[in-house]
Amino acid sequence: MAGTDRKRSPMLGGPAVVLVGPQLGQNVGMVARAMLNCGLEDLRLVNPRDGWPNPAAAAAAAGAGQILDATRVCETVEEAIAGLQRLYAATARPRHMVKPVLTPRAAAADMCEVKARGEAVGILFGPERSGLSNEDLTLADRVLEVPLNPAFASLNLAQAVLIVGYEWYQAQAFGSGGTRPRRLPHGGVRLADKAELLNFFARLEAALDAGDFFYPPEMRPSMVRNLRNLFQRADLTDVEVRTLHGVVTALSKGRGRGRG
Amino acid sequence: MAGTDRKRSPMLGGPAVVLVGPQLGQNVGMVARAMLNCGLEDLRLVNPRDGWPNPAAAAAAAGAGQILDATRVCETVEEAIAGLQRLYAATARPRHMVKPVLTPRAAAADMCEVKARGEAVGILFGPERSGLSNEDLTLADRVLEVPLNPAFASLNLAQAVLIVGYEWYQAQAFGSGGTRPRRLPHGGVRLADKAELLNFFARLEAALDAGDFFYPPEMRPSMVRNLRNLFQRADLTDVEVRTLHGVVTALSKGRGRGRG
Repeated sequence: MAGTDRKRSPMLGGPAVVLVGPQLGQNVGMVARAMLNCGLEDLRLVNPRDGWPNPAAAAAAAGAGQILDATRVCETVEEAIAGLQRLYAATARPRHMVKPVLTPRAAAADMCEVKARGEAVGILFGPERSGLSNEDLTLADRVLEVPLNPAFASLNLAQAVLIVGYEWYQAQAFGSGGTRPRRLPHGGVRLADKAELLNFFARLEAALDAGDFFYPPEMRPSMVRNLRNLFQRADLTDVEVRTLHGVVTALSKGRGRGRG
Repeated sequence: MAGTDRKRSPMLGGPAVVLVGPQLGQNVGMVARAMLNCGLEDLRLVNPRDGWPNPAAAAAAAGAGQILDATRVCETVEEAIAGLQRLYAATARPRHMVKPVLTPRAAAADMCEVKARGEAVGILFGPERSGLSNEDLTLADRVLEVPLNPAFASLNLAQAVLIVGYEWYQAQAFGSGGTRPRRLPHGGVRLADKAELLNFFARLEAALDAGDFFYPPEMRPSMVRNLRNLFQRADLTDVEVRTLHGVVTALSKGRGRGRG
């Protein structure tokens, strides 16, 4: 996967992540991991404080070394963003700047739209301690703010990249709703059909009649309904219905009998 | 903010975060930070490997020491989840278990709905290296999977907590974002809590032991898991759990006895 940045077009792997003046190599490595988690591949560094390449970054990147191998280092923000058509600036605190402010979710939808037009997108992140300067922020088309606990909103660099990348991944994978419907893995089994279910219900109710469960008798219809609803809600598989037959058999055997 | 866990009701600060067998104190500290970022306050540890309190956790928590001060340490998962009515299990890899699988976003909508009914919610996270065991997973009502780059999906513990907490924060602050949560009218009753459920399971399994249900004996653990998963999926109310106790009683009475 290593290669020149020419081969790693931002069109392939989502938005470019541009770190302006990152301080610790370890943080750059952790950003690389978060990026790969989210399918992002295009990392650009502007004046990394501790130089480049950086052994601390490589150590922290662990399985995401391919991102570092392809990282591009620039001397100015202007150089790093030159090929991009839409630039977002991630910031933790509001600034006095007349510029649209988006949540990561809204930004992700926006990015999908821009990329669908064949245009290149990037996100600026500032130095760990100070964040982006107003000058850097001015370069961006949109400000990106993560809505979090206002009393404790600061994220470390890799976490900020993770949240923005996560939203990007959800948007491009699942559309603007961003979520997959609930699924229920059945591991090769199938849902019980209604005949199987009704057969089990009838059998259970007969066994309960024999144990005088339905009392007083006039309550039987509503008690039966409640029981059926309860089992119905579990979306039972065919295997589970057979298991439940076994449960009724085992319980009904009574305590007096041993293994036959 | 420090206080007993009684004062830190999960109703106040969102879902409880339950770390099962966390290994590094540093990771617990980073989880505390991620929680506070997302307005989560109720942290519970089950058998932390390096003991508790832990200086490495305190150092990593930095500004989030208040979460650690109020952390509850338990010896078993059952103890940690006893008062919860809905439990999610975070897992990185699919398991052969018939249980609904939700994205963090769908789960957050679900949590808001459950909490709006006044019920308590928690999320299980497994040890850093191995993740949750099948036994722990069986205790949960829902499985929570973060959709990420399938070629590189593993998140560290604090990042997983961050994403889940982030979605919770977005959902409670801005609504469910268009996803339509499943509605389950309870008509004045409440979901059973985990202590009530586990008590029923233990009782059912003892009755099944008496009826020689678990055969061959080496299959008992997986048979128990399957049974618990099946009942768990039904989102039982407290009234239904009492009904099921009545079912076991009635079936176990055998056919010889009449009403006493």
